[in-house]
Amino acid sequence: MFPEQSDKESIENGHTLMPKFDRDGLIPAMAIDAVTKEPLMLAYMNAESLKLTLEKQEAVYYSRSRQTIWHKGATSGEFQKIVTIRTDCDQDALILEVEQMGGGCCHTKRSTCFYREVQADGSLTFREE
Amino acid sequence: MFPEQSDKESIENGHTLMPKFDRDGLIPAMAIDAVTKEPLMLAYMNAESLKLTLEKQEAVYYSRSRQTIWHKGATSGEFQKIVTIRTDCDQDALILEVEQMGGGCCHTKRSTCFYREVQADGSLTFREE
Repeated sequence: MFPEQSDKESIENGHTLMPKFDRDGLIPAMAIDAVTKEPLMLAYMNAESLKLTLEKQEAVYYSRSRQTIWHKGATSGEFQKIVTIRTDCDQDALILEVEQMGGGCCHTKRSTCFYREVQADGSLTFREE
Repeated sequence: MFPEQSDKESIENGHTLMPKFDRDGLIPAMAIDAVTKEPLMLAYMNAESLKLTLEKQEAVYYSRSRQTIWHKGATSGEFQKIVTIRTDCDQDALILEVEQMGGGCCHTKRSTCFYREVQADGSLTFREE
């Protein structure tokens, strides 16, 4: 579905997507707001869900807990419209710059899943919404 | 070193960091610029490197290729000073909002590792620096 990773030069400076999936066949994908760059969530894709994301131009993840393709928003209406997808130097991570539809990204009804800050002592504090 | 994850309520709404490490003992950590929110890199931490990050207030990762603690910047000078650490609803991902020191984040000498965009046809284009 996607080319295997080859030489370092092609991976880092090439013009072809050759994603590195882990041994479970997954790659992490961080969704961020395309305008504000605010982080929204981190999830995973397998090759099939990445292909679907490119086709639909909406975020399609792979749910590790449910072990199935997860078209974000299909039941909740909280679709993520793709504005830009980015990959990194070694092509083992993705960023989705999205327009978040619906009420919010997180199942807790917050606008982002990253709603808490980690203090140096290991305690968590809640960010203001 | 960190508490085990317990009930869903404590994980999602608690005030204690109880990170969920994967079966290799790792958790993904996305570093972003604390001011612009621009994504810089995605790497991994084990419990020891997360503890060191909290102590030093500088990013300390775990290098999967070298299988060792990786204090970013220790050899290159490209330290990442922690401004804010965030975790997500299920505490299986981290965001480091950092001040990037030195020339840039990426080993390719770019300011970010995410310097290419993925087009719908699977080709990659380079972002302007």
